[in-house]
Amino acid sequence: MTSTPAAHDPNKMAVLRRTQAVFSVLLVLFVSPLPCHNVPAYQKPVMVQQTGKVLPKPQMLTVSAEAYTLAMSGFKFTYGSSSQMCDIVDQAFRRYYDLIFVVDGVKKAPVVSKDMSELTELQIMVKEPCTGVYPSLESSENYTLTVAAPMGTLVADSAWGVLRGLETFSQLVYRTDDGMIIINKTTVDDFPRFAHRGILLDTSRHFIPIKYIKQNLDAMAYNKFNVFHWHIVDDPSFPYQSVAFPDLSAKGAFNPYTHLYTQEDVKDVIEYSRLRGIRVVPEFDTPGHTASWGAGLPGFLTPCYDGSAPNGKYYAANPMLNTTYDYMTKLLQEIKDVFPDKYVHLGGDEVSFNCWKSNPDITKFMEKMGFGTDYSKLEEYYIKNILDITTSVGRDYIVWQEVLDNGVQAKSTVGEVWFEHPTIQAVLERLTAKGYRVLLAAGWYLNHDVYNPGTDWSTFYKLDPRVFNGTQAQKDLVIGGEACMWGEYVDGTNLIARLWPRASAVAERLWSNKDVTSMADATVRMDEQRCRMVRRGLNAEPLHPGFCQFEYD
Amino acid sequence: MTSTPAAHDPNKMAVLRRTQAVFSVLLVLFVSPLPCHNVPAYQKPVMVQQTGKVLPKPQMLTVSAEAYTLAMSGFKFTYGSSSQMCDIVDQAFRRYYDLIFVVDGVKKAPVVSKDMSELTELQIMVKEPCTGVYPSLESSENYTLTVAAPMGTLVADSAWGVLRGLETFSQLVYRTDDGMIIINKTTVDDFPRFAHRGILLDTSRHFIPIKYIKQNLDAMAYNKFNVFHWHIVDDPSFPYQSVAFPDLSAKGAFNPYTHLYTQEDVKDVIEYSRLRGIRVVPEFDTPGHTASWGAGLPGFLTPCYDGSAPNGKYYAANPMLNTTYDYMTKLLQEIKDVFPDKYVHLGGDEVSFNCWKSNPDITKFMEKMGFGTDYSKLEEYYIKNILDITTSVGRDYIVWQEVLDNGVQAKSTVGEVWFEHPTIQAVLERLTAKGYRVLLAAGWYLNHDVYNPGTDWSTFYKLDPRVFNGTQAQKDLVIGGEACMWGEYVDGTNLIARLWPRASAVAERLWSNKDVTSMADATVRMDEQRCRMVRRGLNAEPLHPGFCQFEYD
Repeated sequence: MTSTPAAHDPNKMAVLRRTQAVFSVLLVLFVSPLPCHNVPAYQKPVMVQQTGKVLPKPQMLTVSAEAYTLAMSGFKFTYGSSSQMCDIVDQAFRRYYDLIFVVDGVKKAPVVSKDMSELTELQIMVKEPCTGVYPSLESSENYTLTVAAPMGTLVADSAWGVLRGLETFSQLVYRTDDGMIIINKTTVDDFPRFAHRGILLDTSRHFIPIKYIKQNLDAMAYNKFNVFHWHIVDDPSFPYQSVAFPDLSAKGAFNPYTHLYTQEDVKDVIEYSRLRGIRVVPEFDTPGHTASWGAGLPGFLTPCYDGSAPNGKYYAANPMLNTTYDYMTKLLQEIKDVFPDKYVHLGGDEVSFNCWKSNPDITKFMEKMGFGTDYSKLEEYYIKNILDITTSVGRDYIVWQEVLDNGVQAKSTVGEVWFEHPTIQAVLERLTAKGYRVLLAAGWYLNHDVYNPGTDWSTFYKLDPRVFNGTQAQKDLVIGGEACMWGEYVDGTNLIARLWPRASAVAERLWSNKDVTSMADATVRMDEQRCRMVRRGLNAEPLHPGFCQFEYD
Repeated sequence: MTSTPAAHDPNKMAVLRRTQAVFSVLLVLFVSPLPCHNVPAYQKPVMVQQTGKVLPKPQMLTVSAEAYTLAMSGFKFTYGSSSQMCDIVDQAFRRYYDLIFVVDGVKKAPVVSKDMSELTELQIMVKEPCTGVYPSLESSENYTLTVAAPMGTLVADSAWGVLRGLETFSQLVYRTDDGMIIINKTTVDDFPRFAHRGILLDTSRHFIPIKYIKQNLDAMAYNKFNVFHWHIVDDPSFPYQSVAFPDLSAKGAFNPYTHLYTQEDVKDVIEYSRLRGIRVVPEFDTPGHTASWGAGLPGFLTPCYDGSAPNGKYYAANPMLNTTYDYMTKLLQEIKDVFPDKYVHLGGDEVSFNCWKSNPDITKFMEKMGFGTDYSKLEEYYIKNILDITTSVGRDYIVWQEVLDNGVQAKSTVGEVWFEHPTIQAVLERLTAKGYRVLLAAGWYLNHDVYNPGTDWSTFYKLDPRVFNGTQAQKDLVIGGEACMWGEYVDGTNLIARLWPRASAVAERLWSNKDVTSMADATVRMDEQRCRMVRRGLNAEPLHPGFCQFEYD
């Protein structure tokens, strides 16, 4: 009566998934649970061991058998005498002290063995000034960590490197069954493989309360993600409270009081992210995906026609009106003021031409501009204007892949690959051949409408953004990727459980060396990371039968 | 860049799912997000309206346009003068008063309009004595509810009928956008279509803390489920603390302190269930699915052999030893003492013969018993003994379908259908033709390894346990069904979100009239029920884009 035979062998399911030809087998499994014959002698699951394995796996890590204890009153984080000091590191000290000593929400003093040496201090050295800094694509996240009693050292150029090193340190620490807190003698020399390691949340299809956005930022920090791609508005709702255009949320949010991100909320999220070394890249997707903009910004959307008369429907930004660009200039100026990140995501995906085609004024404009009947030229015209505005207000931009396929952009443009056309690898090859920098999102849609909880992470894990036909220069143009959690079926009720620890697979792929590919090793790290997140209070879901020392309760 | 085109039209996805031939289309959608062309003019999602729709839909319901207000201080539940009184109803009054007036965890006094009549009282009449009663398969859950100002009435034979009627009453009540609490003039005459409406939870593959078991019991009450099928032990772990055999959990639980259901815990769950009209049917599955029993019950499992020597592995209860039946007698006597339900689930599924075949003592026993090489006869021998023991200790039993296909059982046996062999309908036809009562679980495995969040509920909804080839007498032998949440990928982190509101589809199928089949109507009820559960504090996940008045936060 168990769920399916494959449930007893998650790897088998994963193998099936990769082969299109056997999908009909899966269908049968899906529709009808089958009895297991040849049930093997059962191995009792053992507890997921917390032994200080680090995810994402560091670039260089040497762990010796020599182990030290940590005492709650006897351990401290300190700055080295010539280190820079700042709020980012101060607050990280506080957080990581708690993460090491808190279990189930309370500080739990560990048992201390007199037979072992004690690690009493981790001394931090930050080389660059870090007060008030904000992370960027170019930020160094490198760090060197040496754990040896009585004092360890953590050296980094930037506060961001310190954050990554403290996360590693907190993961190297583990609590034994008999209540000791242990860390092995260890040296780590670490840096990320990709500079942009993002999570996309969609807060338009469902509103996600700030509480869960922050939980997700915590999880991101635990997995060394560094970009929160905030797909903040879209067709269904406009929860961003705009200063310039307050009617956008007043009329476009699901509810302008309860389903709203106020300016204070946004500031709060940005600061919470900054303190964790996470950039907030907001997306204001145009010209499509803008239905929720219509009510609050009259004249922004294109009126659609049935024959010669408007039919009362509207679709996409109206690319022929100067007011459209005036609106966007004002909005982008506000975005620049509110969001400190150098980049804004401008969308540009999935534009249907039906409404534009139906509109006689657009037809006349097409003639005037010499576009003939090629509406993709109209789209390019719109996009080019928006990109120019963005540049003029002083921001760089990311766009979805269609915009790069249209090919009108500057080489500085970053394109985000989201669909196979015809394959992920072909898109990567094509766009990097044109000289564009790209991010990979396709293959990492963790929200998928049909998904395999517990097993599909291996598919995410095996996807390497730099495995495609191309020169080294092309490979280098792949600057990272993003795990995406679109919001059709996701809100505060299920966001964390659905995203974690599955996104940890993407985290490791984007941080660790390309040669870190052993599924057996990754499985062990994923399990420990999942239990670690649970112990830290996040409802990360299980990957297969078994248990953690501390369960979610 | 959205997840898939179908994501914009969940109904379309549901339609695809029903047609095996187009599954390859789904595969493409799954593997590669495709751009949407022909994007229609977008309709902004409107708030899921809380207008007092009841799920499961009552058998007879008449709602008039006339509406009344409820005031927090002005409304009360009362017993009619000739009504029976008991703790079950007393505590239900308290719970439902809170469910009506509490929002986001605090009692929120509604706005009261002087222009409307006020409902000041719901008077309850319980005909049968209800003190200390425990529900059974034969319990009446019928009720008649009349809502008319100033006093409504709820009449039922049993306390169980009162519980169902109070749930209906609490769902008829809704809170308007301007803060009034409203109920329309209504009459309801209601009873369940099926007597056994269950949820199976598996607490062996993962341990589920009592907190989430209780949350699930709350959700069950909100959806009029009446059986908690507690698949309490299985191969991976034995979390049930046995009085007779304390080593079973001491050596078979994941952890005998933190991953354990003590006798107190079990009593607590049973009482919590009883007060909600929910039977607790424990499952102790043998002879297979018993790996976790081995350490705590030496000699219970069969030693497996490689050639002439034991290989150190064990599998399944040893059917040739008298001690096996002595153990089971003692355990079943305890189960009878601990669990008040008339039924115990004895499992009996998925027995592999490999280990039995390898064991030379079993071979000799087979010869002695005249079973030849037909190990299914050995299995029948075991099962028959267990069923006899169960009868002798005074309990009825439910078994998985294999046991009935073997055909040795009494006509009083209840069989639970869990796999298509060759189809669900063929199994139902075959087993009822033999005269057995059956429960349907196949088709309602909500834990499935590959699932469609948000859309697969329509498949569950369309499955009618009495639609198969057979006489009316055969149809009547289908006494209900169960939504199953096997535990491979489920624990406290994701149980509630994954199970609800998808199980509400099964709830309606098992309670409402067979003619309640409109998907459009069901969708509206499912949406309101989901938002209602969220308002009541459960993290039931969303079914499609949109929002609730009160979100989970």
